[in-house]
Amino acid sequence: MSAIKFCLAQLNFKIGDFEGNTAKIADTIFNAKQKGADLVIFSEMSVCGYMPDDLLDYPWFVEKCEQSLEAVAQSCQGIAAIVGGVMRNPKKGRLLQNVVCFMQNGRIQQTIAKTLLPTYDVFSESRYFEPAQETEIIEFKGHKIGIAICEDIWDIYNDFEYKISPGTILKELGAEIIINPSASPFHLGKQSLRNRVFSGQASRFDLPVIYANQVGIHTELIFDGASRVINSNGEIALQLPDFKESIQYIEFKDQQFQSSNTVPIEPDEIETLHSALIFGIQDYFKKMSFKKAVLGSSGGIDSAVVQALLSEAIGADNVLAVLMPSQFSSDGSIQDAKQLSENLGNTFEIIPIKDIFDQYTSSLASIFEGREFNVAEENIQARSRGVLLMAISNKLGNILINTSNKSEMAVGYSTLYGDMCGSLSVLGDVYKGQVYALARYINRNEVIIPQEIIEKAPSAELRPGQKDSDSLPDYDILDEILKLYVEGRKSKDEITMEGYDSQVVERIVNMVNANEYKRYQAPPIIRVSSKAFGKGRIMPLVAKFQ
Amino acid sequence: MSAIKFCLAQLNFKIGDFEGNTAKIADTIFNAKQKGADLVIFSEMSVCGYMPDDLLDYPWFVEKCEQSLEAVAQSCQGIAAIVGGVMRNPKKGRLLQNVVCFMQNGRIQQTIAKTLLPTYDVFSESRYFEPAQETEIIEFKGHKIGIAICEDIWDIYNDFEYKISPGTILKELGAEIIINPSASPFHLGKQSLRNRVFSGQASRFDLPVIYANQVGIHTELIFDGASRVINSNGEIALQLPDFKESIQYIEFKDQQFQSSNTVPIEPDEIETLHSALIFGIQDYFKKMSFKKAVLGSSGGIDSAVVQALLSEAIGADNVLAVLMPSQFSSDGSIQDAKQLSENLGNTFEIIPIKDIFDQYTSSLASIFEGREFNVAEENIQARSRGVLLMAISNKLGNILINTSNKSEMAVGYSTLYGDMCGSLSVLGDVYKGQVYALARYINRNEVIIPQEIIEKAPSAELRPGQKDSDSLPDYDILDEILKLYVEGRKSKDEITMEGYDSQVVERIVNMVNANEYKRYQAPPIIRVSSKAFGKGRIMPLVAKFQ
Repeated sequence: MSAIKFCLAQLNFKIGDFEGNTAKIADTIFNAKQKGADLVIFSEMSVCGYMPDDLLDYPWFVEKCEQSLEAVAQSCQGIAAIVGGVMRNPKKGRLLQNVVCFMQNGRIQQTIAKTLLPTYDVFSESRYFEPAQETEIIEFKGHKIGIAICEDIWDIYNDFEYKISPGTILKELGAEIIINPSASPFHLGKQSLRNRVFSGQASRFDLPVIYANQVGIHTELIFDGASRVINSNGEIALQLPDFKESIQYIEFKDQQFQSSNTVPIEPDEIETLHSALIFGIQDYFKKMSFKKAVLGSSGGIDSAVVQALLSEAIGADNVLAVLMPSQFSSDGSIQDAKQLSENLGNTFEIIPIKDIFDQYTSSLASIFEGREFNVAEENIQARSRGVLLMAISNKLGNILINTSNKSEMAVGYSTLYGDMCGSLSVLGDVYKGQVYALARYINRNEVIIPQEIIEKAPSAELRPGQKDSDSLPDYDILDEILKLYVEGRKSKDEITMEGYDSQVVERIVNMVNANEYKRYQAPPIIRVSSKAFGKGRIMPLVAKFQ
Repeated sequence: MSAIKFCLAQLNFKIGDFEGNTAKIADTIFNAKQKGADLVIFSEMSVCGYMPDDLLDYPWFVEKCEQSLEAVAQSCQGIAAIVGGVMRNPKKGRLLQNVVCFMQNGRIQQTIAKTLLPTYDVFSESRYFEPAQETEIIEFKGHKIGIAICEDIWDIYNDFEYKISPGTILKELGAEIIINPSASPFHLGKQSLRNRVFSGQASRFDLPVIYANQVGIHTELIFDGASRVINSNGEIALQLPDFKESIQYIEFKDQQFQSSNTVPIEPDEIETLHSALIFGIQDYFKKMSFKKAVLGSSGGIDSAVVQALLSEAIGADNVLAVLMPSQFSSDGSIQDAKQLSENLGNTFEIIPIKDIFDQYTSSLASIFEGREFNVAEENIQARSRGVLLMAISNKLGNILINTSNKSEMAVGYSTLYGDMCGSLSVLGDVYKGQVYALARYINRNEVIIPQEIIEKAPSAELRPGQKDSDSLPDYDILDEILKLYVEGRKSKDEITMEGYDSQVVERIVNMVNANEYKRYQAPPIIRVSSKAFGKGRIMPLVAKFQ
């Protein structure tokens, strides 16, 4: 049997940009042909991007998708390709199918639909697609190739078990290789999970596996690439980089993949988190055609880390920091914030909010008369800052970036329409403890974030002498309780049994529940954990919680 | 064969309130027994309320659900009941099933799972549930009773067709009646859709159908009740009221239902819309334990209609109207807003925003220098009002109610963090044309909303002499284009072919697409159409639209 030279195309697609996406695919096929490749593999739903959500309910969207697949097929002369897209379901059931097309001789030769449709967390494929009813094999250059689309190879790696194992069926049908075109989003720990899944499945089926992931962001989701080729013994023969486009070639000969490629060493968690957030910001700005950002710079750790990440992602020249001290801001905080902007080379503006605050309280005096300073006055400060930042954004065109972290988003220690404003939340899935770790990582070579910002006790500075620890437990305890509740879905009793004070647990869990309404109106959050606030966590607002 | 006396229990459940829900169910069973009923029918997922969303991912939640079903079964001595809930799936597949339990002699006799799991629009049942693998019949008093849970009887009434027809299988198994415990949310036109479905299916299977719906709101969704009993000839033998709890009895004898009940005449669309919104507000306040509301009263039609609805729903004493005129507000608007509050008997406060606005522009002077008045200044006004309203809400505890309508939410003619603030949007699914119709309906007996408010040209009053019609087509045209795009999912070309100006269509559709980011952060919207903004319409933010 003849060898096959595969081209693995890990590309960045934009949802609904049929013209751009098909041009990119056709170019890649053209170049791969020049390099003597036999078969080019693209990721899941390449022509339309993953995931168009309810754009799939629009017939014109699906028609464009089908037309794009037809158009791309015409490029496949003297070379073959596997290209993902969406097509109408020709039979009874849901209207669409998530498919890959095997293209050769200028046309679509076979269309293979996805069998297992992920419908949990950020996935809702059963909302749109009818699962494949049968499994077929592709015959290519004397070899039998099996296609398992993304989830199709994850049959035994979920909380629940699927009732069908597409890999097992492909093996029975005589497949010699499994190709797995994917749109697999990143979260911390996903890489080692993939190691387990791909090596496990390759060994289980005794077949080599080619995992072709997409790369790029779609609002909350980061697709990290890191495509790979695994031999049937479970060993990685080739791994593509994460967080960038890459096109690589590999030969399949004597039933295995030949590669001299060394597998990259996996970076540690904070380095990965840092890369993910930088990429998340960068690709968001690029795909939205945004250039400049604005953020509120308080002299606290959260805004400092966001400011540093933004500066790296879109360039220090493009970041405008706005310092908005109130009468409760410490001199230290203002100094620290100025120092940070200087260290980063960002433009900064100082707009004290005392006069605005006073104007509000004076306008509200008759209504507020006889009532004590409380959360109302605290929130006026946070919201005045929101108004200023949005005014600057509206006037100058800089995009407001949110600086809230996951811990405070969880317990509602943030002001709706105040510091919760923004087009994108960079740290909304990053716990406070991880924010500190990011700050130390950012400072790994030189002091970028002033040490004072990292060392001082966290405070919202919305009333005299306020400290986060006045009303919250220490962040290391808070973060652990939150992880157990939000990600681990433990009950109060179960969390207490892990060794936490029952009153603290009670209070924290109640705070999380009581603040669902705030998160309902939060900006989109870059997802870096396996359970982020946002589209992957749908909670009722009107409910009695535990 | 002996007759069966059914009790149809249309009740209002709260999500996660296991104690309250089970007490209500047990009381109903107790009372029904006193009245000689044989079998009490409750709605879908009664013990936990529909729909708990990702609370279902918490094992403790599911355990409580199972325990509640067991507890309720103990009340069934000398009487039987059909009670909906959630249970763990004992087999491979998704972890849970959506079930109803047939209870008799103090225990659960049979558990029947749902077969068709709605996963479109506001439904995402495939996210949680494994469908039923087999269909069984309940034997009761010598009769064969079939259970079809909610969607199970809607097999041929969707955009797509399900591949299984549970009703057909029940008929084949010898069912004499189909009982359909449901959690079927309201939208305009749903009642006539249900007429078609229930009469159609009863006739198709030649079987009587009992439809037992829940009543009550869960954030966005209104469950309207309107439970009914249909004879096998498709005629309605009994219909329960909509928008309130109701318990009624009916006898099944000689293979049909005996009833002297006259079916209520269906009210017209605006009357139904009015009732739905009143109920939506009322039950939201009740379930959230809110008492008082605050809203911004501009003298425009939207806030006037919301203020009148609120006054009727929660009582005029509980509504605080805040007039916040700027230098661009007309005297007429202020007078009209005052007159409205007086007509309704609401307390009102007047807080001019000019000084606050001036303070902002003065604080921003150096940044804004040399740039013209634009959307930035317009938004400062809207956002200053948002800050004032939220401050009053924070200080007095009145809940801020949003007043944006669907037409402006669609095209982004509303300010994020400004007039888009609020805990609940009353009109976010009501087109501008419907807002006017509501105003006329509210004034049907006496002038509540001053005629000037209804007659004057709509204006945001954020710059001198501004009118909505400066930048938008007339609302009757706008509404029709929006319906075709948002609800009809037509393409620009298709909308133009329906007789609209292609440039207007282009502009409106682009505005809808460009404002997805605003709606992402909008408050929950009471759903009254078949396609509302919110959880039933999931759109990507980073995308190239048509």
